Amino acid sequence: MFLRTLRDDPADAEVPSHKLLVRAGYVRRIAPGIYSWLPLGLRVLRNIERVVREEMDAIGAQEIHFPALLPREPYEATNRWTEYGPNLFRLKDRKGGDYLLGPTHEELFALTVKGEYSSYKDFPVILYQVQTKYRDEERPRAGILRGREFLMKDSYSFDLSDEGLDNSYQLHRDAYIKLFDRLGLRYVIVSALSGAMGGSASEEFLAEAETGEDTYVRSTESGFAANVEAVTTPAPPEQSVEDKPAAQVHHTPDTPTIETLVDFLNSAGLGRRFSAADTLKNVLVKTRAPGAAEWKLLGVGVPGDREVDMKRLEAAVYPDEVALLDDADFAANSFLTKGYIGPGALAGNGVRYLVDPRIVRGTAWVTGADKPDHHVVDLVCGRDFTPDGTIEAAEVRPGDPSPDGEGILEAARGIEIGHIFQLGRKFANAFEVDALGPDGKPIRITMGSYGVGVSRLVAVIAEQSHDGDGLIWPREVAPADVHVVIAGKTDEIKDGGERLAGELDAAGVRVILDDRNVSPGVKFADAELIGVPTIVVVGRGLANGVIEVKDRRSGERVEIPVAEAIDHLTALVSG
Amino acid sequence: MFLRTLRDDPADAEVPSHKLLVRAGYVRRIAPGIYSWLPLGLRVLRNIERVVREEMDAIGAQEIHFPALLPREPYEATNRWTEYGPNLFRLKDRKGGDYLLGPTHEELFALTVKGEYSSYKDFPVILYQVQTKYRDEERPRAGILRGREFLMKDSYSFDLSDEGLDNSYQLHRDAYIKLFDRLGLRYVIVSALSGAMGGSASEEFLAEAETGEDTYVRSTESGFAANVEAVTTPAPPEQSVEDKPAAQVHHTPDTPTIETLVDFLNSAGLGRRFSAADTLKNVLVKTRAPGAAEWKLLGVGVPGDREVDMKRLEAAVYPDEVALLDDADFAANSFLTKGYIGPGALAGNGVRYLVDPRIVRGTAWVTGADKPDHHVVDLVCGRDFTPDGTIEAAEVRPGDPSPDGEGILEAARGIEIGHIFQLGRKFANAFEVDALGPDGKPIRITMGSYGVGVSRLVAVIAEQSHDGDGLIWPREVAPADVHVVIAGKTDEIKDGGERLAGELDAAGVRVILDDRNVSPGVKFADAELIGVPTIVVVGRGLANGVIEVKDRRSGERVEIPVAEAIDHLTALVSG
Repeated sequence: MFLRTLRDDPADAEVPSHKLLVRAGYVRRIAPGIYSWLPLGLRVLRNIERVVREEMDAIGAQEIHFPALLPREPYEATNRWTEYGPNLFRLKDRKGGDYLLGPTHEELFALTVKGEYSSYKDFPVILYQVQTKYRDEERPRAGILRGREFLMKDSYSFDLSDEGLDNSYQLHRDAYIKLFDRLGLRYVIVSALSGAMGGSASEEFLAEAETGEDTYVRSTESGFAANVEAVTTPAPPEQSVEDKPAAQVHHTPDTPTIETLVDFLNSAGLGRRFSAADTLKNVLVKTRAPGAAEWKLLGVGVPGDREVDMKRLEAAVYPDEVALLDDADFAANSFLTKGYIGPGALAGNGVRYLVDPRIVRGTAWVTGADKPDHHVVDLVCGRDFTPDGTIEAAEVRPGDPSPDGEGILEAARGIEIGHIFQLGRKFANAFEVDALGPDGKPIRITMGSYGVGVSRLVAVIAEQSHDGDGLIWPREVAPADVHVVIAGKTDEIKDGGERLAGELDAAGVRVILDDRNVSPGVKFADAELIGVPTIVVVGRGLANGVIEVKDRRSGERVEIPVAEAIDHLTALVSG
Repeated sequence: MFLRTLRDDPADAEVPSHKLLVRAGYVRRIAPGIYSWLPLGLRVLRNIERVVREEMDAIGAQEIHFPALLPREPYEATNRWTEYGPNLFRLKDRKGGDYLLGPTHEELFALTVKGEYSSYKDFPVILYQVQTKYRDEERPRAGILRGREFLMKDSYSFDLSDEGLDNSYQLHRDAYIKLFDRLGLRYVIVSALSGAMGGSASEEFLAEAETGEDTYVRSTESGFAANVEAVTTPAPPEQSVEDKPAAQVHHTPDTPTIETLVDFLNSAGLGRRFSAADTLKNVLVKTRAPGAAEWKLLGVGVPGDREVDMKRLEAAVYPDEVALLDDADFAANSFLTKGYIGPGALAGNGVRYLVDPRIVRGTAWVTGADKPDHHVVDLVCGRDFTPDGTIEAAEVRPGDPSPDGEGILEAARGIEIGHIFQLGRKFANAFEVDALGPDGKPIRITMGSYGVGVSRLVAVIAEQSHDGDGLIWPREVAPADVHVVIAGKTDEIKDGGERLAGELDAAGVRVILDDRNVSPGVKFADAELIGVPTIVVVGRGLANGVIEVKDRRSGERVEIPVAEAIDHLTALVSG
C-alpha cells in the first residue's frame, strides 16, 4: 500500500476533513485548490462515483462523457464566456483559438441533443456524466471542499413540456435523497433561486456542517429551509388610508443616519415614539438588461431597520445586472438628493420604484423629503405614494417569521452537495433545440440541470463523520472493509495476521493489512486515523485462539475465536 | 438508448475507425481532436479501462490520480515547460500564475514518491493512473486516434537498482502483452529510442494498421522489429589500407549533385565504374547541449546514395539539439567549402566528424576536396582520414540487412498503443528522489515510465476489427453482449422480443433492444454497424417457436427454440 500517514496537520488546513484527509494519506496538495488522490482517497472517490451511477441509472439516465477542454463558441452563444468572469479558466491553442476548461456543460448537452434527436418520440431523455470540472475560484479553500479542479456528476433532462420537466426534476430529487441517504449524510433541502443560471424551480441539498460556506435559514417549527435569496417576506395586512394623519415635512438637521434621525424624531415632541422600523430607506441603484447598453435607475425601498442585501437584490433583478450609483450618476440626476431621497422625486422623474413587501397600502413612513436636511413623516403608502411593485431585497434576519407561517427563522450553515433546477428553455432557445411534434410542428425543448459534487462528497462525509482520533467511513464508501493490525513480533502472530488477511481477501472482503515493523501503538493510531469501519487486531490473544474485532465508530471491542473470524467478519461486512 | 446512427461518413474522416465510430453513434466531434463519448462509446472505453486496471493490479501496481491542471514549477525544473514547445497547452489563472494541462506526469509522480517515501524498505513501488491528458497536436487527425484530449493509463516504477528497474520493466512488458492479447489486437513490439524522454531500454507496442502514423521496419525472416530511429547498421568487415591506390584530387566541374558527380567520374576514363554508394557525403550541422549557449559544428558522413534522416540524427545526438547550418554559419567558417566539404578541412579545423557505420577502416571513397569544383577519389578511411566515431543518421531503406543478421528490412505502418521505457535517474536527479539505504546512505531512485493509450485503443480495435457493414467488437470490450432486433409489428413479436431482452438482462447479459418503429432492414443494418458480437432477431419465426441468433463476426446464423434462448445466449456470452 502506497501510504504514508502524517503526524501534523497541514499548515493551510482550516477544517477537520482537510486535516484528516491529508494526515491519513488520502489526498495531497499540488497547487491551490488542486489535489492528487492517493490510493485510499481514490478508493473512497470511486465508491462514491459507483453509488452516484447506480442511482442515476436507476432513474433511466444514460451516461455520456464530454471533454473538459471546450471551444469558446457555444459559451459565447449563451454569453457565459463573458458572464463567468475570472472564474473561468481560459486558454488559447497553438493556432490562437479560444478554449475554456468547462465549469459546467449545459451548452454541450443542449447541442448534443439537438444534433442527435429530432422527433418527439425521442423524448424525454436524461443524460449524465461524471466528469472533471474547473473553476478558478478566488479563494480555493478547505482542501477538496472547494477546489479548482473537481469531479462532478452533472445531468440534464430534456422534456417536451413543463409537466415533463416537473417529472424529471422530481425523479432527480428522489434519486438525490436516496443517494445522500446511502452515503449516511445529514442534510437539508433548501429552496434556492437559480441565480446566475436562470430558470424557475430550484433546490439545493446542503450537508449540515458548521464549517460550511453556504448560509441558509430554516424555521424553528416547520421543515422550511431556504437560501437567503429564496426567502419571501410575508406581507402584513393592508390598512385603511383614510384615518391616517396628513404627511408633514420636518426640518431634520444633523440626521445623517437612521439612528440619528430616530433620535431626532423622538426628541421633537411629536407625541409618539419612533423606531428605525418606522422609517423608509430608499436605496438608488442602476440595472442593465442582458446585452443592453444603457443602465436604468431603480429605487428600492426597505424599512429603515434593515439593510439592502445585495445578493438578494441581484437574485431579484436577475437576469438584469445591478450596480450602486456613483458620483457621476448623482451628478447626472440632480433630482436625487443624496441622503434625502423620497418616493416623490422618483415618481416625478419616471424612476421605477420597488418596495419591500412590508410596505403595503395604508402603512405610514418617515422618509426623505427630496431636499437636504428634511424628512417627511406619515407619508402613507397608497395615499401619498404608489410603488411600482415589490422586491425581495431587504436582509433576512434570525427571528423573522418563517414564510410558511410556522415558527421563526434561524440561520444555519451547510455545504452544497447537490443542486437541482429547472432551466426551462434558456439553453434550448439559445441553440434552437426543437423536437418535431406529432403534428409536424416544432416543440421547443425544456431542460433541467442537476449536479452532485462527487469529489467534494469525500470531504463532506469526512466532515460529518470523524472523531478526535480520525476518520470514520460509512461502510458503503470506506476504502476497505477491514483493517488488520499485526500487533506482535512473533512468527506465529505475523503468520496468523497474514493468513487471516489472505483468507478475508479470498472471501471477497477488502482488506488493509498493516505488517510494518513499528510499534503496535503507532499501528493502532494509524488504523483509527484511516477510519476503516472494522479494525482487527491479531496479537497476543492468538496464543489463546482469539483475535480482537473493534468497531471504529462505536469503539466497541469483541474477542472472536480465530476459527470463527472469517464467518464473523464476512457477516459484518455484508451488513 | 441515446443513440442515433448516421447514414453518411463524417466529412473529415480519413480512416475506417473514425468513419464507423461516428456513423454508429460512439463519438462526436466537439472541436479539432476533441470528442465527446456517447453511451456506446463510453461503454467500450470503460470496458477497456477495466481490462487495463485488472492487468495493472495483477502486477501489484497501485492506482492514484493526479490533476490534469498542473503548476508550471515542476515542469520548469525538468525543462519540459520549454521543451514541449507548442504541444503544451499553457494557461494562466486569475492571479497570473502559470499552469499547464498535463501531457504526461513524470514530474508529479517523482515528487509524490519523494514526498511520501523515504526508506529503502518502501521500494520498489509501481504507481499508475488512468487519466485525461492533453497535447496540442499540430495536426489532430483520425478522430480519437490522435486527439488533443485523450485518456491514458500511465504508470511509473521506482526502484533502488538497475536490476530492479529491469524487473519492473519486464513486469510491464508482460502485462502489456496480456492486455493487448485480451483485447484481441494484432501488434508488434518494436525497439525504440526514447527520444525526447531520455533513458535507455525502450520498446513500443504498435498495432498493425495500414492507416497508422508510426512507421517501423521489420525483418522479412526474423521477429526483429524496430522504430526507424532504433535501427542499427551492421558494419562491413575492415579492410587492409595497404593495397589501396593513393588518393587523387580531380577537377570535377558542373557536378553539383551526387548523380552528376557519378556520371562525370564514369566518363572520366578512370578505368572503373562508380555508383552513388562509392561517394561519401559530408553533411554539416550544429548541435547544442541542454542549457548551453553555444552551438558546435558537427560533420556527419554518410554514403552518397543515402540521405541523412533528421529524425535518426536527432535521436542519435539526444539530449543535444541539432540544426542545419545557415548562411551565417558558413560565412563564419570559411574553411567549409559548400558542396565540396571533405574530412580534411574538418580535421584541420577541429570539427567533430562522425560517420555512418558502413565507413570502416580500409574503405575508399569519393568525396569533397575542400575546394570548389574538386573531388578526391580513393580517399581511404584509416589511412587518409580518421573519423571521431560512428553515428546512426543515414536513412534506413527497405532491403537493408536486418540488424540481427536474418533477412532484410521491410517498412510497415502501425499505431502506437503502448510504450515502455526505462527513464533511469533523469527525474530522480531533477528532484533529488532518494531512499535512505540500510547503511544510512541515500540511494538515488531509478524510474521507469509506461503508457497505454486507453481512448486511442477504442479506435485501434475498431480499425483492426470491422468489415464493410460496420464494427465488430471483441466480446471483452463490446458495448453489449446481445443486440435484440424486433423484426415485426405484431404484438406477439414485440412482446416476445421485450420479454427475451428482459430475461437476458435479469440473467446478467448486457442487452441492446431495438424496438423502434422502423423497417427490419434499417434495424439489421444498424445492428451490423454497431457491431455487438451477437445479434438476435425476433421475427416471424416466433410463430414456430424460434428466434435467429447471428454471430456478427462470422456472419453465421442459427435458429434456436425460444425455450432454449436464455441458456444458449448466456452460454455464448460467458464464452
